[in-house]
Amino acid sequence: MYDLIEKKRNGQHLSTEEINYIVQGYVKNRIPDYQVSAFLMAVYFRGMSFQEMADLTSAIAASGDRLDLSSIPGIKVDKHSSGGVGDKTTLVLAPLVASVGLPVAKMSGRALGYTGGTIDKLESIPGFKTEIPYKDFVDQVRKVGVAVVAQTGHLAPADKKLYALRDVTATVDSIPLIASSIMSKKLAAGADAILLDVKTGSGAFLKEIDESLELARAMVKIGSKHNVRTVAIVTNMDQPLGYAVGNALEVKEAIAVLRNSKQPGDLRELCLALGSQMLILAGRTKDTSQARALLEEALDSGAALEKFTQWVAAQGGDARIVDDDTLLPCASRIEEVTSPQDGFVHSIAAREVGRAALLLGAGRETKNSRIDPAVGIVMRRKAGDHVRQGETLALIHANQKNMAEAKEILLNSYTISNKKPPTQPLLYYLVQDDIVIPL
Amino acid sequence: MYDLIEKKRNGQHLSTEEINYIVQGYVKNRIPDYQVSAFLMAVYFRGMSFQEMADLTSAIAASGDRLDLSSIPGIKVDKHSSGGVGDKTTLVLAPLVASVGLPVAKMSGRALGYTGGTIDKLESIPGFKTEIPYKDFVDQVRKVGVAVVAQTGHLAPADKKLYALRDVTATVDSIPLIASSIMSKKLAAGADAILLDVKTGSGAFLKEIDESLELARAMVKIGSKHNVRTVAIVTNMDQPLGYAVGNALEVKEAIAVLRNSKQPGDLRELCLALGSQMLILAGRTKDTSQARALLEEALDSGAALEKFTQWVAAQGGDARIVDDDTLLPCASRIEEVTSPQDGFVHSIAAREVGRAALLLGAGRETKNSRIDPAVGIVMRRKAGDHVRQGETLALIHANQKNMAEAKEILLNSYTISNKKPPTQPLLYYLVQDDIVIPL
Repeated sequence: MYDLIEKKRNGQHLSTEEINYIVQGYVKNRIPDYQVSAFLMAVYFRGMSFQEMADLTSAIAASGDRLDLSSIPGIKVDKHSSGGVGDKTTLVLAPLVASVGLPVAKMSGRALGYTGGTIDKLESIPGFKTEIPYKDFVDQVRKVGVAVVAQTGHLAPADKKLYALRDVTATVDSIPLIASSIMSKKLAAGADAILLDVKTGSGAFLKEIDESLELARAMVKIGSKHNVRTVAIVTNMDQPLGYAVGNALEVKEAIAVLRNSKQPGDLRELCLALGSQMLILAGRTKDTSQARALLEEALDSGAALEKFTQWVAAQGGDARIVDDDTLLPCASRIEEVTSPQDGFVHSIAAREVGRAALLLGAGRETKNSRIDPAVGIVMRRKAGDHVRQGETLALIHANQKNMAEAKEILLNSYTISNKKPPTQPLLYYLVQDDIVIPL
Repeated sequence: MYDLIEKKRNGQHLSTEEINYIVQGYVKNRIPDYQVSAFLMAVYFRGMSFQEMADLTSAIAASGDRLDLSSIPGIKVDKHSSGGVGDKTTLVLAPLVASVGLPVAKMSGRALGYTGGTIDKLESIPGFKTEIPYKDFVDQVRKVGVAVVAQTGHLAPADKKLYALRDVTATVDSIPLIASSIMSKKLAAGADAILLDVKTGSGAFLKEIDESLELARAMVKIGSKHNVRTVAIVTNMDQPLGYAVGNALEVKEAIAVLRNSKQPGDLRELCLALGSQMLILAGRTKDTSQARALLEEALDSGAALEKFTQWVAAQGGDARIVDDDTLLPCASRIEEVTSPQDGFVHSIAAREVGRAALLLGAGRETKNSRIDPAVGIVMRRKAGDHVRQGETLALIHANQKNMAEAKEILLNSYTISNKKPPTQPLLYYLVQDDIVIPL
């Protein structure tokens, strides 16, 4: 191991065997933490070649089970988001694409820090089970067309161990390490094709668009090296996605989009863009306009909402929430944050909104924190909107915790200006094969 | 600690308090190995400011005892070599400067890897004790003028712990870490002034002269920040120093130089150069020509050899070895390595010679290896010497182990060319205050 740390430290490339040696040795406790952390820091500074990233991805994926989804007919397209604030895309997208015939067999993660997790959002639905046996999971996809469960520890255990170490040694934000961490889990999850939503901006893990694009390109290349067709879209995460931040609140917003409540908004737009790419990856349609038409039709006809209802029921959840959102957990207090002046919302610092929601209990400070599914934030104004002094910017849904602090952070997260800001694009780039297409 | 790793990783400077926090936390086991190794790797890439190096040195020095040599009259000048092959300088220098009145109260290290250690060399003298109580050590310096003992664990324990970690995480060759490691021990050893012999070349820790000079400058600056006058000489370690490599063999060579056997050689030359600087640092003479004259006189008169004899006897060693070297451990077999062709010795790869000696048992592969004091190598030809085919290049002194392998490595370490190579300088630079003087 010493020689491999030194090799990477000196900027040389490691072979497939050498990378396997490190990952296997670490998982089997033959290589101690202190050598791996030094290695990770050397990777932080020296980077990795695409071949090394692909090898690291394989080694991590091979450290645990690899799901076999072959008994589910059709092309299974997985979707992954690099994480942000208010990102309830999966809640909309899974039933939406399932309603036009794409099988969705998805594993998702939990909230950590200021970013939310799909599994926690789903668990805010009374009765919804996210840990179900593998056989039942596959059966459900075959029958209902969609299932979303919590990622199990048997999938890529090396990633779990490596991530825990990176998290305490300031080696998280390294593109080769992020790319191989994400892709190893996606590959182990057994999909035939992968669509990546790489977020960029103040509320994303990567703040700079160039970095996000680099990550997207790395992951797309890793996917194709593993013969899994992979497409990435780099999308805006400067302000929170949609209007709600907080678990049950986000479920409500997802239902509203599925109900096709004619409020266009960035969430609907992003779901249509991502869904279209999934349809193309699955060979369901040839181009985005065809795909988009199909998805809009599923929203218009109610087929997507109906699929959501079936899905919730299939996983044991109370499907009545679709028509009666008072059956979802509700916070005991709702207070408003008002605008201190007339003007336009220039920007909303997504990370700060995430932090306010975390303080209220919507997220996890540490892995063992308990989540309060009811609390969170609902924005009434987003970037570009006009507001008058005293009008509502956002509502805070709180139980016992930190109402005052959350209010202050939320107010500060809004920048109000006297001019209408230029409209920010929602979608930046599409990356497929080695091609980057500006959107 | 996470924040401090990240800070250094991002190239920012750490404060005195932050560096103290790391060193104290590590020694007291409050900060785990894996965080410290990531930090060390970040230092490897980002370097340290002089202030940070000085702070790190202070923090390491403060982790244990600081020797009080004030009961010994006169200015105590410590000498340190950055390590090489065949470096028996201390064996000559200690009695030499002591014989002209400089008190020598020195702690030395043991061999590791292909470099030798003064303490192991001294222990090849039958009866010689290197672990003696502190009070007796000081008494001996007061009475005899010279004492050299093994470094104790109470001196800079943080260095011991940090070095052990660096040794397994490829973070040894970082100039700020080397500089603070060496200087912390020297400062804790209580000298009034320090002379550093920084080796450069194939057999040295640092192969490039620029790096060695950078290390020299860093250590000199650290010394002056601690108000301990420090001078460094950058010297050649491309070929082994002197003719012998191996513990008892090096003792014999040191005695030959002290006996003033008129064979000039690089070892004698280096001892005179280093000794002159020690005399100047101690305020004993004003310039090098005066100092050199004094030291040559001590060699000519036999005073230096006499001081060596007294020293050996004072530490319990059999002083009869001075006149009868058969009392030193002798190897059971001596074989010669002969030149495959006529020509000039173009170079001798010092590191390879060290490796051959290590294989014979003269060094330590790991900290727990046992040393065979008798074995080693005696070179008959050095760089620039002419040799005919079949003539002896070197003699190998072996017991049971690895004669054939050592012979092959040794033969390969010699490069024979048809032209006389340019003479290599022995001394490159003198560094004092912020001045670099080419020698």
